[in-house]
Amino acid sequence: MFFEGSEKKFEVHINPAHGSLRCLLSDVKQQLVAQAGADILSSIKSEHCEAYVLSESSLFIWDNKLIMLTCGQSTLIESALFCIETIGVEHITAFSYQRKNECFAQLQPSTFLDDVKRLNQLIAGQARRIGKLDGHHHYVFSANHNFTPTAVDNTTELMMYHISGPTADYLAGSEQHIPTINQQLNLRRLFADFTLDQYAFKPYGYSVNGIFEQYYFTIHITPQPHNSYVSLETNLDLKNNHVISELLAILQPSHWDFVGFNRQLPITLSQAQYCTAQALIDTEQGYTIEVKQFQAHQTETLTIEHLN
Amino acid sequence: MFFEGSEKKFEVHINPAHGSLRCLLSDVKQQLVAQAGADILSSIKSEHCEAYVLSESSLFIWDNKLIMLTCGQSTLIESALFCIETIGVEHITAFSYQRKNECFAQLQPSTFLDDVKRLNQLIAGQARRIGKLDGHHHYVFSANHNFTPTAVDNTTELMMYHISGPTADYLAGSEQHIPTINQQLNLRRLFADFTLDQYAFKPYGYSVNGIFEQYYFTIHITPQPHNSYVSLETNLDLKNNHVISELLAILQPSHWDFVGFNRQLPITLSQAQYCTAQALIDTEQGYTIEVKQFQAHQTETLTIEHLN
Repeated sequence: MFFEGSEKKFEVHINPAHGSLRCLLSDVKQQLVAQAGADILSSIKSEHCEAYVLSESSLFIWDNKLIMLTCGQSTLIESALFCIETIGVEHITAFSYQRKNECFAQLQPSTFLDDVKRLNQLIAGQARRIGKLDGHHHYVFSANHNFTPTAVDNTTELMMYHISGPTADYLAGSEQHIPTINQQLNLRRLFADFTLDQYAFKPYGYSVNGIFEQYYFTIHITPQPHNSYVSLETNLDLKNNHVISELLAILQPSHWDFVGFNRQLPITLSQAQYCTAQALIDTEQGYTIEVKQFQAHQTETLTIEHLN
Repeated sequence: MFFEGSEKKFEVHINPAHGSLRCLLSDVKQQLVAQAGADILSSIKSEHCEAYVLSESSLFIWDNKLIMLTCGQSTLIESALFCIETIGVEHITAFSYQRKNECFAQLQPSTFLDDVKRLNQLIAGQARRIGKLDGHHHYVFSANHNFTPTAVDNTTELMMYHISGPTADYLAGSEQHIPTINQQLNLRRLFADFTLDQYAFKPYGYSVNGIFEQYYFTIHITPQPHNSYVSLETNLDLKNNHVISELLAILQPSHWDFVGFNRQLPITLSQAQYCTAQALIDTEQGYTIEVKQFQAHQTETLTIEHLN
């Protein structure tokens, strides 16, 4: 019953000479998703953005920007290479590719370094690991473009590990319903203006995409016992709301990572949260990446997993 | 320059009907080691025990007990199966097989579960994982024997991750000498009565076996930058000495695990050490396993590893 919740992600920005990415043929978009071994499950559109819920995470397409995330054993690198070749390197103004360490790296079709070798044949860039090899760590490939991110070109990523409490219990229970998940996560209040597209997987698992004007958010929940994982990603400015602190209070993770691209952690911590590690990196593309790692401040009694 | 420091280990106990394990032919002992892809580098003997420093860790042989540890990408499972078949299942009174999670699991020739499938064809037992999948965790296969451990059949394992300070700097430096390592680790005082067998690897890395009467200890150091690892294992009673607290003070790890087989952690912690998790398991073979995980109580600034 193990599912690798950790996402791989790529983000590409293009110049206007290419024309809008939203005008790519529907067939091309489907090929893009198929390259990762994923399917489109549903989609929503706004004036600015198209958002697709995938069998493994999400795809967002703006006129000049595309973000694709996939989890499990998906081959996102194939989608990234397909995307670069379809758009044409000459039209790409910024490109990044990320992976999170996986629990079962031996089940992945490629390593981050394998992926970087292939990317570097098309786009020169810098590959970095942030975080210790024997703990949660983040791999970032960032192209050498001279790019100037705009106010909406920033990202907040929140990765929550080992959730607990009543919502965690419900999410890993025998049956879940979208309205209840929605209510438990308090999404209508946290993302009041957003159009939502939600999907509940069997026997459990949940994805939601939300879009509003130029903004997006996406939440993916892998609630499996012994190794639950929830991710939030958004370009919304979280300074004036309580999204992060509310999600932490609802989901009660034992560990969580914040990764900000031109975003800093917008909350102050309670005594119960302890910052174990932090890093700050300036990339060639005009992004400052802030990474902070946290854990709940208590001694945990380990559950023993019987393997036979 | 990455080397997988984490050890795999098996321990086998036999009945007197087999005759002494020390009387196994030297050729058989060499085959045993070769099965793991390792070589014997040197050896020492006492009245009770033979101890071998291997190219990947250590082998200890008593009349009625054998312990073998190997690190790197070694195939210890082959040695374990060879050992069981050479001794004969009917002579084995207790058997256990352990693995630590690896940093690069995808480089290992087998997973713990692969190994357990093969072991279970010869010896029935229980396989368990202790610790979270996304953190340091320990795999233990313990046979279903009805065994009564004696006073020397216990084990203290100490695994120290990310060492720091002057000794760590020396160990990862351009040149190391056995007398200096010996002095920095304070081995002559911590293990005063023991006969030592030490080996310094190139460009770095250090192993020591020590034996005295029925007792053994072994320390293995993988001092690589970004991912250093030091392990101590012994059946010595550490209640009345300072081995653990002194090694922690000298090596200053950011994280460390204690695993005791019929041994409890013999020290009280300073304020600077924080226990993040613990577990207690009773095995079928008469062992109580205590696992405790610790970390230094400070926010660390992550170093960024550039991968290209």
